[in-house]
Amino acid sequence: MFDLKSYLEAVRQEVDERLRRFLVDLSPPTRISQAMAYSVMAGGKRLRPVLCVAAAETVGGSRSSVLPLACALELIHTYSLIHDDLPAMDDDEKRRGKPTCHVRFDEATAILAGDALLTLAFEILATTGGQRTPHEGLKWMTAIARVASAVGFRGMIEGQMQDMAFEGTLVSEPELERLHRLKTGRLIEAAVGVGALVGGASSRHQNALHVYAQNIGLAFQVADDLLNVTGDPQRLGKAVGTDRIRGKNTYPSLMGLDGARTLAAQLVDNALKALDTFDNKADSLRAIAHYVIERNR
Amino acid sequence: MFDLKSYLEAVRQEVDERLRRFLVDLSPPTRISQAMAYSVMAGGKRLRPVLCVAAAETVGGSRSSVLPLACALELIHTYSLIHDDLPAMDDDEKRRGKPTCHVRFDEATAILAGDALLTLAFEILATTGGQRTPHEGLKWMTAIARVASAVGFRGMIEGQMQDMAFEGTLVSEPELERLHRLKTGRLIEAAVGVGALVGGASSRHQNALHVYAQNIGLAFQVADDLLNVTGDPQRLGKAVGTDRIRGKNTYPSLMGLDGARTLAAQLVDNALKALDTFDNKADSLRAIAHYVIERNR
Repeated sequence: MFDLKSYLEAVRQEVDERLRRFLVDLSPPTRISQAMAYSVMAGGKRLRPVLCVAAAETVGGSRSSVLPLACALELIHTYSLIHDDLPAMDDDEKRRGKPTCHVRFDEATAILAGDALLTLAFEILATTGGQRTPHEGLKWMTAIARVASAVGFRGMIEGQMQDMAFEGTLVSEPELERLHRLKTGRLIEAAVGVGALVGGASSRHQNALHVYAQNIGLAFQVADDLLNVTGDPQRLGKAVGTDRIRGKNTYPSLMGLDGARTLAAQLVDNALKALDTFDNKADSLRAIAHYVIERNR
Repeated sequence: MFDLKSYLEAVRQEVDERLRRFLVDLSPPTRISQAMAYSVMAGGKRLRPVLCVAAAETVGGSRSSVLPLACALELIHTYSLIHDDLPAMDDDEKRRGKPTCHVRFDEATAILAGDALLTLAFEILATTGGQRTPHEGLKWMTAIARVASAVGFRGMIEGQMQDMAFEGTLVSEPELERLHRLKTGRLIEAAVGVGALVGGASSRHQNALHVYAQNIGLAFQVADDLLNVTGDPQRLGKAVGTDRIRGKNTYPSLMGLDGARTLAAQLVDNALKALDTFDNKADSLRAIAHYVIERNR
């Protein structure tokens, strides 16, 4: 039986140690580096780094070689949270149980901290890629392009645009799915995809992992919507029921709680099926798939 | 005699044509791509692309090979302008004679358009670098790292933080110089530096061009400060006298108009001296150095 709790904890610790080196152990600290570190080190599941590491290890790659990639993904994820929380966007005052970046610092600093985290992610990727062999370096170059594409104006950013545009209007399920595939799915797909790529996956294995990531990405969002209805605000570190108050389109609002739960389970099944081609090296990814929908119980 | 006007016009056209392909000729256009294109295609001198191309050509590189790099620099420059103009930062309503991005669209869209331009820049750099030979690709990887470092939290973003922090307080000349070296200098240095690198410069030539870029970057800022006092708002496409109203520290406020003019001329002289090692291939860079301080007459 795979011990997911220990695995998550171990990867989280290694990722956090690296992130701390990038952000906290800077002398002298500046207001901007403090704002960046504040948001990055506020905790969080480190889901994207974990997926990246697990994908690399599944195909025989080493953890240490993909850690910079895993960290870059988390920096990008944090940048997107800081900007999404801004008054001009979702106007959230709490995140992970703490005041959001613009509340703790100020709006200008929060905008710049997000900008700086996105930029630092690419600096880390390019610096690491430049230290590898030319053959490996080419994979890192591909990884940079894929990550940038995933979070760009045809990816995550378009998802956030649609999310805001749809607020208060009723959308269909295909529209909601498209929104989430962009807003959260693309970065999760990239995390698995570039982890596999840099880890040395064959193209057959890359394809299988892509199917896994697509399903897990959407399952994660459905589960997140469910948590916003049924979750415990204390454990989540943020308010619940906010989606309904804002008139956000969610899977529970569209298909009811049971319908959304059935969909999440179906997506996790699809994700697991895509892993059939792997032996027990993929047990981490299998356990993460179960965890995605079970964390809300 | 080098014909700078034709040179600027030719490079600008080639850069704009590429930028248009990246941003405008997209089907279907989306609100975010329209906001990005609106700000990028609003005109502007394309100083960073021109410096990048001129540096590459000075060391024997080809224009077409560095054009994607030149475009990426302009996208990053535009992102920084969009975010600097936001209500939470400088709160500017006009830029290049047109309503700023958040005025023409909305604040959320402007924040995301800036994010998307920064991201697109790295996507273009990585995609282009991935198509080159391994040897060339490594140079592009270095270029990505250098650009990211230049505009990150130790570079351009720290400059913007200092600019806001200093508003309304009196600073010394070394403090003002440090601010500008970060806020505008680092990206201009990167433009020249990565143009030279990808263009195939020897390390001796790279060093000479670095000295050129450092001086030209600061001269540009001094000239900009002068324009804000003595410029013609019609020709500039933006209001003048705004620095004084806001209590911004500028070179004219610190050392008077004549002092600032003398400093700008001195910096241009230093820049020209750094080019002594080059033959007439550097005439474009020489002409740009003169242009930097002469554009305000």
